[in-house]
Amino acid sequence: MSSCEVPKNRSGLSMGPQTLVIPVELFAVNRKRLVESLKPIVEDSIVLLQGGEEVPFYDTDITYNIFRQESYFMWTFGVTDAGCFGAIDVKTGNAYLFIPRYPEEYAVWMGPLLQPNDFTKKYGIPNVYYVDELPAILGNLNRGRLLRLKGLNTDSGLTAKPAVFEGIEKFTLDDETLFPVIADLRVYKTEQEISVIKYVVAVSSYAHRQVMKKIKPGNYEYQGESIFLNACYEKGGCRHVSYTCICGAGSNGAILHYGHAGAPNDSPIKNGQICLFDMGANYYGYCADITCSFPSNGKFTPDQKLVYEAVLNANRAVLKAGKPGVSWVDMHILANKVVLEDLKKGGLLQGNVDEMLEAGLGAIFQPHGLGHLLGLDVHDVGGYLKGQPERPQKPGVNKLRTARVLEKGMVLTIEPGCYFIDPLLDKALSEPNLKKFLVPEVIQRFRNFGGVRIEDNVLVTDNGLEDLTRVPRTVKDIEDWMSGRLDESIFLDEEILFIW
Amino acid sequence: MSSCEVPKNRSGLSMGPQTLVIPVELFAVNRKRLVESLKPIVEDSIVLLQGGEEVPFYDTDITYNIFRQESYFMWTFGVTDAGCFGAIDVKTGNAYLFIPRYPEEYAVWMGPLLQPNDFTKKYGIPNVYYVDELPAILGNLNRGRLLRLKGLNTDSGLTAKPAVFEGIEKFTLDDETLFPVIADLRVYKTEQEISVIKYVVAVSSYAHRQVMKKIKPGNYEYQGESIFLNACYEKGGCRHVSYTCICGAGSNGAILHYGHAGAPNDSPIKNGQICLFDMGANYYGYCADITCSFPSNGKFTPDQKLVYEAVLNANRAVLKAGKPGVSWVDMHILANKVVLEDLKKGGLLQGNVDEMLEAGLGAIFQPHGLGHLLGLDVHDVGGYLKGQPERPQKPGVNKLRTARVLEKGMVLTIEPGCYFIDPLLDKALSEPNLKKFLVPEVIQRFRNFGGVRIEDNVLVTDNGLEDLTRVPRTVKDIEDWMSGRLDESIFLDEEILFIW
Repeated sequence: MSSCEVPKNRSGLSMGPQTLVIPVELFAVNRKRLVESLKPIVEDSIVLLQGGEEVPFYDTDITYNIFRQESYFMWTFGVTDAGCFGAIDVKTGNAYLFIPRYPEEYAVWMGPLLQPNDFTKKYGIPNVYYVDELPAILGNLNRGRLLRLKGLNTDSGLTAKPAVFEGIEKFTLDDETLFPVIADLRVYKTEQEISVIKYVVAVSSYAHRQVMKKIKPGNYEYQGESIFLNACYEKGGCRHVSYTCICGAGSNGAILHYGHAGAPNDSPIKNGQICLFDMGANYYGYCADITCSFPSNGKFTPDQKLVYEAVLNANRAVLKAGKPGVSWVDMHILANKVVLEDLKKGGLLQGNVDEMLEAGLGAIFQPHGLGHLLGLDVHDVGGYLKGQPERPQKPGVNKLRTARVLEKGMVLTIEPGCYFIDPLLDKALSEPNLKKFLVPEVIQRFRNFGGVRIEDNVLVTDNGLEDLTRVPRTVKDIEDWMSGRLDESIFLDEEILFIW
Repeated sequence: MSSCEVPKNRSGLSMGPQTLVIPVELFAVNRKRLVESLKPIVEDSIVLLQGGEEVPFYDTDITYNIFRQESYFMWTFGVTDAGCFGAIDVKTGNAYLFIPRYPEEYAVWMGPLLQPNDFTKKYGIPNVYYVDELPAILGNLNRGRLLRLKGLNTDSGLTAKPAVFEGIEKFTLDDETLFPVIADLRVYKTEQEISVIKYVVAVSSYAHRQVMKKIKPGNYEYQGESIFLNACYEKGGCRHVSYTCICGAGSNGAILHYGHAGAPNDSPIKNGQICLFDMGANYYGYCADITCSFPSNGKFTPDQKLVYEAVLNANRAVLKAGKPGVSWVDMHILANKVVLEDLKKGGLLQGNVDEMLEAGLGAIFQPHGLGHLLGLDVHDVGGYLKGQPERPQKPGVNKLRTARVLEKGMVLTIEPGCYFIDPLLDKALSEPNLKKFLVPEVIQRFRNFGGVRIEDNVLVTDNGLEDLTRVPRTVKDIEDWMSGRLDESIFLDEEILFIW
């Protein structure tokens, strides 16, 4: 077979029989797609990626966190070890892995030192060498240039770090070609990747259900986080989450990135409050990103029901309207519109909804975007690549992490929200063109409400969106689930039951 | 009152009423001690420390982990927020905190922007300014020099990072004076610090007990980790652990730093194996570091009992012998000696135990040091400061993280171990001066045994060591605890019951 074909290697990454096995072919398929995309442009070249390094905790001898691989490297090679390089000869498709050479003494501290052929067995990459052999091996391939990864992450403003090794100055470097190609490939998930995402979304759904069932008024917010983390790890083998857990009760639900070190989910959950819990597990780098909003005591008040159903209607409208060919910007506006319409029906707003949208009222109640691409990064790459629609300018829509048109194989979050955020409400009340839509005395009633967000993870299929999330969503289902009247079986797909 | 006195501020750091409140006086006392130490040397000076920054996960917009404060900064100011500077005017003892100035929009994402007086209320530091005011405020103090932190961490080989800000070149910098003084102060724990350490050790003890009770053959190692993390967080409010959890079953117990990303606690726990679980919670930076070794099925085999009791006897011997004035090196050798004596009694070794020690056999069965200082770092600072005993040269003892003489107020781990590590046993069998002590056919029986480590956290008191650890330790207690015959109450101090 041509070395560019995907080998039939049955090994894979897994945390034991009760968890998903990720076949190493997943990464071989990614490499194959990359080679096929690059060959017509720069056949006489080598792709070179540098994997992540351990990050020390300041000047101490512990790490800031357990090592996790850099996402482009993970996508391409599927290697979970620190300190590696990876290369692909574009002409032949051959993949090369370069591993650190540790002193023998490390075996006492780190376990048996894996040899190159152990790495081949574990990761299905035939050519494994030590990092110190990299210049020689790449030199022998004798290709015209090294393609390195350099490009802007449009969510962080940071730049991917091109590979560096001693002796690299002898090679012709190309830092332009690789980034847009690999970033765009990552936007479209393969069949194998979709299986992994389905798994991590199923695990996260399970964990959210546990939280909803166990959390009670009187608990602290972080106890919900703890239940979630434990369910993901003990049951699903997910050692990491994809981002800091956001567990806001009451008005904390209106703080979009609540849960950070300065506001560490450390408030009590009071009776009658609504909880907004945004948490997603991570399995070998692949992300889930789910938000559940529910009443702390298991029973919605009329006001809570009003806001919740406005957001749910928005979520459902997008789920129904989304399909290949549809603009994500239009979906954002659709969601805003549904929420504003329902708030109007509920008596919080007055006037013409299209005029509200035009005036920017959508961004007062939902300052963030409708959702984002999801994959090996929680805010996945490829949102604003060249040749794709540019970032819109209007408030709210300008927070979208992509303005692309939906295509088959994309995975995204749909996460409309409605929040009562003091500085934004004050702003709206101070600007005549927004103030006129608000019914101040009703708005006042919601001042300490917090917020509702309903976030699903969806796959774009041939003719619509497949919702991968398995949590109770309607008011009735949530109340039934929290009171024990709803059986778990309705949330379990056959594929997950097969593993569990 | 002189501003160097400790203010009576009742506020503190806490994760709710079921957790410990750390009074902000703890940090005021630390500052007072620092000023009292520096004043006689460099009265006309300002201490300047730079707090930690968020660490991004590669080029993405998530962080590598939830922010945790750098330990010297935490010790001095007790501030958990990122991006701060802190200063102390040595002459007056006045403390200054400099906080980042965020744009107003941050309030939507991060929560209400705390003003300087909010920080004063939260942390009990009277003088709070924005970071951009730092050069002017320090300039106005008009002191002779800025004392910055620069010095070697003898566990990592890394260097503490001196504070840097724009305009610092206008000040006279002194990077020599501060480090040895503050590092040495950190070695001796105050009453307030001891309370926090007692709490985090109690939480970690509770969590270890949960793991021992819940884990069963057939589980995976990481499920023990997950139970531990959840118990520390849900019950004790400890969001972080102090180091990567080491959960080794069977032969994995002989890999000293097992649990890292390349060996992520992902093996099944088999019936008849011994588990070695080394895990410690972290509460506002303060560390616990406890190891429990126990049979997976709750019942020791004769071989397991033999090795376990050898290590327990070593642990108990040190607990009994340790007191102010005793050399830590002597304690290491004592522990080695007890283990070797018991291995000899058990038939694994032959010959004279003192000769074994002299030949370095101790380091074959316990390649690591007896224990280390414990505080805001799990391997706490001050181990090898100038004027203190230097690192010993002999195998095993050379791994000690300090060779100091014990003094009142030190907190340390006592963690003797006995492991059957293939490369080390092979080494011993290949060297005639070690080989002669081994009984090869008995050693062979233990080849896949793994290891035992028994790690307690102790406080040096006026006349001995106070063991803060509250887990079943004898063979009988472990078997009784795991089978449900031992009541939890015997592990609960009154002070913890008061909180829980």
